[in-house]
Amino acid sequence: MIKAGIIGSTGYAGEELVRLLLGHKDVQIAWYGSQSYAGKKYQEVYRNMFQIVDARCIDEDLKRLSDEADVIFTATPQGFLASRLSEEILSRTKVIDLSADFRIKEVSVYEKWYQVQHNCPQFLDEAVYGLGEINQEKIKSARLIANPGCYPTCSELAIYPLLKECMIDKDSIVIDAKSGTSGAGRGAKLDNLYCEVNENIKAYNVATHRHTPEIEEQLSLAAGCPVSVTFTPHLVPMNRGILVTAYASLAKDVTEDEVRDAYERFYQKEPFIRLLDRGICPETRWVRGSNYVDLNFQIDERTGRIVMMGALDNLVKGAAGQAVQNMNILFGLPEEEGLTMAPMFP
Amino acid sequence: MIKAGIIGSTGYAGEELVRLLLGHKDVQIAWYGSQSYAGKKYQEVYRNMFQIVDARCIDEDLKRLSDEADVIFTATPQGFLASRLSEEILSRTKVIDLSADFRIKEVSVYEKWYQVQHNCPQFLDEAVYGLGEINQEKIKSARLIANPGCYPTCSELAIYPLLKECMIDKDSIVIDAKSGTSGAGRGAKLDNLYCEVNENIKAYNVATHRHTPEIEEQLSLAAGCPVSVTFTPHLVPMNRGILVTAYASLAKDVTEDEVRDAYERFYQKEPFIRLLDRGICPETRWVRGSNYVDLNFQIDERTGRIVMMGALDNLVKGAAGQAVQNMNILFGLPEEEGLTMAPMFP
Amino acid sequence: MIKAGIIGSTGYAGEELVRLLLGHKDVQIAWYGSQSYAGKKYQEVYRNMFQIVDARCIDEDLKRLSDEADVIFTATPQGFLASRLSEEILSRTKVIDLSADFRIKEVSVYEKWYQVQHNCPQFLDEAVYGLGEINQEKIKSARLIANPGCYPTCSELAIYPLLKECMIDKDSIVIDAKSGTSGAGRGAKLDNLYCEVNENIKAYNVATHRHTPEIEEQLSLAAGCPVSVTFTPHLVPMNRGILVTAYASLAKDVTEDEVRDAYERFYQKEPFIRLLDRGICPETRWVRGSNYVDLNFQIDERTGRIVMMGALDNLVKGAAGQAVQNMNILFGLPEEEGLTMAPMFP
Amino acid sequence: MIKAGIIGSTGYAGEELVRLLLGHKDVQIAWYGSQSYAGKKYQEVYRNMFQIVDARCIDEDLKRLSDEADVIFTATPQGFLASRLSEEILSRTKVIDLSADFRIKEVSVYEKWYQVQHNCPQFLDEAVYGLGEINQEKIKSARLIANPGCYPTCSELAIYPLLKECMIDKDSIVIDAKSGTSGAGRGAKLDNLYCEVNENIKAYNVATHRHTPEIEEQLSLAAGCPVSVTFTPHLVPMNRGILVTAYASLAKDVTEDEVRDAYERFYQKEPFIRLLDRGICPETRWVRGSNYVDLNFQIDERTGRIVMMGALDNLVKGAAGQAVQNMNILFGLPEEEGLTMAPMFP
Repeated sequence: MIKAGIIGSTGYAGEELVRLLLGHKDVQIAWYGSQSYAGKKYQEVYRNMFQIVDARCIDEDLKRLSDEADVIFTATPQGFLASRLSEEILSRTKVIDLSADFRIKEVSVYEKWYQVQHNCPQFLDEAVYGLGEINQEKIKSARLIANPGCYPTCSELAIYPLLKECMIDKDSIVIDAKSGTSGAGRGAKLDNLYCEVNENIKAYNVATHRHTPEIEEQLSLAAGCPVSVTFTPHLVPMNRGILVTAYASLAKDVTEDEVRDAYERFYQKEPFIRLLDRGICPETRWVRGSNYVDLNFQIDERTGRIVMMGALDNLVKGAAGQAVQNMNILFGLPEEEGLTMAPMFP
Repeated sequence: MIKAGIIGSTGYAGEELVRLLLGHKDVQIAWYGSQSYAGKKYQEVYRNMFQIVDARCIDEDLKRLSDEADVIFTATPQGFLASRLSEEILSRTKVIDLSADFRIKEVSVYEKWYQVQHNCPQFLDEAVYGLGEINQEKIKSARLIANPGCYPTCSELAIYPLLKECMIDKDSIVIDAKSGTSGAGRGAKLDNLYCEVNENIKAYNVATHRHTPEIEEQLSLAAGCPVSVTFTPHLVPMNRGILVTAYASLAKDVTEDEVRDAYERFYQKEPFIRLLDRGICPETRWVRGSNYVDLNFQIDERTGRIVMMGALDNLVKGAAGQAVQNMNILFGLPEEEGLTMAPMFP
Repeated sequence: MIKAGIIGSTGYAGEELVRLLLGHKDVQIAWYGSQSYAGKKYQEVYRNMFQIVDARCIDEDLKRLSDEADVIFTATPQGFLASRLSEEILSRTKVIDLSADFRIKEVSVYEKWYQVQHNCPQFLDEAVYGLGEINQEKIKSARLIANPGCYPTCSELAIYPLLKECMIDKDSIVIDAKSGTSGAGRGAKLDNLYCEVNENIKAYNVATHRHTPEIEEQLSLAAGCPVSVTFTPHLVPMNRGILVTAYASLAKDVTEDEVRDAYERFYQKEPFIRLLDRGICPETRWVRGSNYVDLNFQIDERTGRIVMMGALDNLVKGAAGQAVQNMNILFGLPEEEGLTMAPMFP
Repeated sequence: MIKAGIIGSTGYAGEELVRLLLGHKDVQIAWYGSQSYAGKKYQEVYRNMFQIVDARCIDEDLKRLSDEADVIFTATPQGFLASRLSEEILSRTKVIDLSADFRIKEVSVYEKWYQVQHNCPQFLDEAVYGLGEINQEKIKSARLIANPGCYPTCSELAIYPLLKECMIDKDSIVIDAKSGTSGAGRGAKLDNLYCEVNENIKAYNVATHRHTPEIEEQLSLAAGCPVSVTFTPHLVPMNRGILVTAYASLAKDVTEDEVRDAYERFYQKEPFIRLLDRGICPETRWVRGSNYVDLNFQIDERTGRIVMMGALDNLVKGAAGQAVQNMNILFGLPEEEGLTMAPMFP
């Protein structure tokens, strides 16, 4: 039995992690961490957990927790883990970080986009970017996993194979992404009120969203050279789901079959990637509550562009589900353990 | 391994049954029945099942299916099962009917409310009303289970103990119920279009809804004498969930503690009933995707009334989950098998 | 030209008042009051008003405003007006109060339900309850109007004629009300976040909601004797709209025609009341954005009850529209001036 | 008084036209056309119009109507008007066509994208593309107006000035558009059911949507040479609204100020165009129910791209409101007559 501790268990991603780990037969949750709700029963914070979770929230104590837990999930605000992580902790326990603290290797890039100093650059090299479909081998032996962001997961998986295969022009990538509102967190902000979000769609942080450098770093690894993208996130009136519509110029003479082939080769053994049938567009409703990423593409012959599309549940494959997937890989469990539920519709 | 066949697998309740049975370790789905989509791949009807369900839909053939399946679920339109059921079928297989065909014992009442002739009254006596919390023993040895309606499940569970204990005036019951739109089915009707349902709430079938006699029959059994209720269903702009707000005059001198006691006694061993803490109202978000029914009550001292409240997921405890629960009881499995998932929020 | 000042113009009701007054040909808005946003441009608080409203928000100053405005609308928190109102102010200007400060005549009832001391009881007698359909004559000559609450407006209009005509049992009234989320205000509270409200329905403040005594006082006036009701509000995932479903025992031998007659007689000259055709239930979508109240009823012969239904837009007839209607009556304008827009659907 | 006839008054765009014309002081609706509902009272088709519209729906009869009406609006399916229009009709009355029949000048392009033969090419030259902000002068003297599509209106207005001023690379344009569900019409289709649309976002008709050639023709006029674009529409779970996020490579050395200047010059006298303040993104909530188009842009210095954004209400500026605007221009009325309502929020 793996003993898991969650720091930041009362955000939406933290709560989804609780839900998934409760259904995981090899895991026991040892610690429901929360600064805001320390001392309060978890089931009073999330009443879906009434009579399911009896524990109380505990204020963070990474050191003590590293003694008690085999794995620590940190679903915490930016900078939290970086200001507390130490060799001592990593020598005792595995850490899967759902924040962005260790996702970007280049400190200067991180500091420029996040506008903070990185307090723990010494672990950046060691941290493994936890995208199982790309980095499975590295994850197996990691101590510190940087769980990818929701937008990056969807964007990278949609674009990676084509960049790797030089099928698209690396300088032509535009990513137009749409997210459900749970991605904005559970903070009590005016902009996230029901009446402000409902019956509305908007772009936000245009050309400045912090997931941009994360996407670029991963795509650069795929391309083997620096890649810049234009990335525009949008907020959609729904609880869950991310849809990515990405655009690029197709390399000369690349055919639809070749593109399809590339996706198939890359993802044929990946249990969570579903390349849809020709002509079928990914939709968030078909992946809700599951760890799947639905992918497909459409070639626009007239303009020589390809439209790459991906859909996932931002709280599952975009956060908690991917963290569980990483834990499974880390601990030598079947990658799908605890993640086999079919998507819930409607 | 229990071999299960589903007639009507392409409605919303049928699809939820598929989802739940896929996650049930002792069941194998042998038959995806559908008249409308016969011959089509199930995953093309519900794309959440892409790469999960490989089968094609088969037109109904109850007789053949009774040879192949240990249990048949019928999630079919009114009158379907009643026009096909036979001793031969029941002698070979168990039938769990999600329609209303065998819920009401009184043929005349059924025919009056449903405005059709009952084609199979000979099995009405044998059919067991599948509300596990009330009829568990009878369900164990049944051949034919009438799976309760969504509104009745929620209404009956909220009111039953208090009627049984004579704590409320049986002539004073008003049930105001609110349902998500999946309860209206997947038929392509103008009234169920997004723009017609969204940003709207309405009552419908006021004083004439067909779930009324079902509720009344069960409450009459609780009271030991005929009970009539006023029942008003409403359509709410959300996918899933039923909330029941029921009103009755409290019998003289009954205290809050006595009421709470009655609920606790009745449901203490029931795994799917959650009596909430004092002052906490049931909400549909806290049961979504699960088989739970959240119950609570509030006494209105000033008027001598009690407000009884219940919330459930209409597709789970209100339909498919309850059917699985009945199957578990029928086959001697733990009642919660395949139904232990925590509610999914948000 | 009537010069109008709005105190509390940055709440949802205040903003709706701005929208309506901008479309009113005889009114000029002289004052956009707001404590929270004082100094900020109104169009930055509500960007729908970009290039429409150029003014900045001003902190409240009731006295100064009473010099400048012909009418003051207070869309303010409980207790605000009661702690500032004076003879001096009322001698200079008309006041239409959208809060509950002056709605209830009985100070003790007010103080019990609102749990505060009333700071201005001397004006309670003078204040006119601003329900134009009932109190039109009194409104004409008032200085201080207590604009009714959203739930009370809908509940009272649905029940009033039948109580007045002794057609229902005054001790049997149950009001089950459902409201869109704008009724909860624009405060940044966790409970009103998109993900908490969406895909959910709940009852709240059961048997304790502050609109109860307001409804009871008005219904008591109709009945000519004290009336108590059980009132249960619910929160619905939509922006606007209130639906009231009210229940009562019908007096002996009252027929459907007589009931219909009573409604018709009462409301025949009322421009904003629409008694729907037989069998048609009120729905919030059909009144959205307008000042209409749609009413209808259904008799439940089997139980001897009547179900009275009403639908309105909580921000229009339930708040700002009714305030404009009251202003029109006060200033001798046609009652419908500025309120003739057809409901906006979808 | 202008007598207006509406053919296709029972679709969502037709109904919005009714709503707007009812509020237009110089117009009287003489004809509520509808094939599907001929003979039925209009208020029974749209109950928001109860006691407002007393007329019955009439089956189409373009000839007869051309005798009775000063202007005919056709909110009809593709090909309807093209198969009925004649010189006789145009000699008697003005026609504003909300369908695509006369939007595209090139017959071959129309026939390729719409996959039908054009039945009336002789009027294509005469038809004026009814985008008031660009073609005002031509509209004044037109007999036949092709009212632009919802996506094209938003896309063209966002991109036009920059193409005209050669500020963007005409071969680099990608348009990612998002629409509310009313754009899909009132047909009873499974894909438009509440449960299918709610909690979902999807792209559809990728690289094949029929609005593409319309956009391209207009942008080509702006550029003075052929322009091709990649256009991807998405369906968003909301009733109303279109958001366009368009991407292009910025011409060398063009500054933010120059871009802003271009927009300002182009639209300074346009009453319905609102160029937002720097850094503010258009959102559909701020234009709901109004004829405004909110525009803004963001330059992505790192990639040399510009992100052009626009938001409008698809039923108003994207259909009925624009039709009224065209009527106003045609009949020499103030352009804003009947269209001055502030956006309705929330």
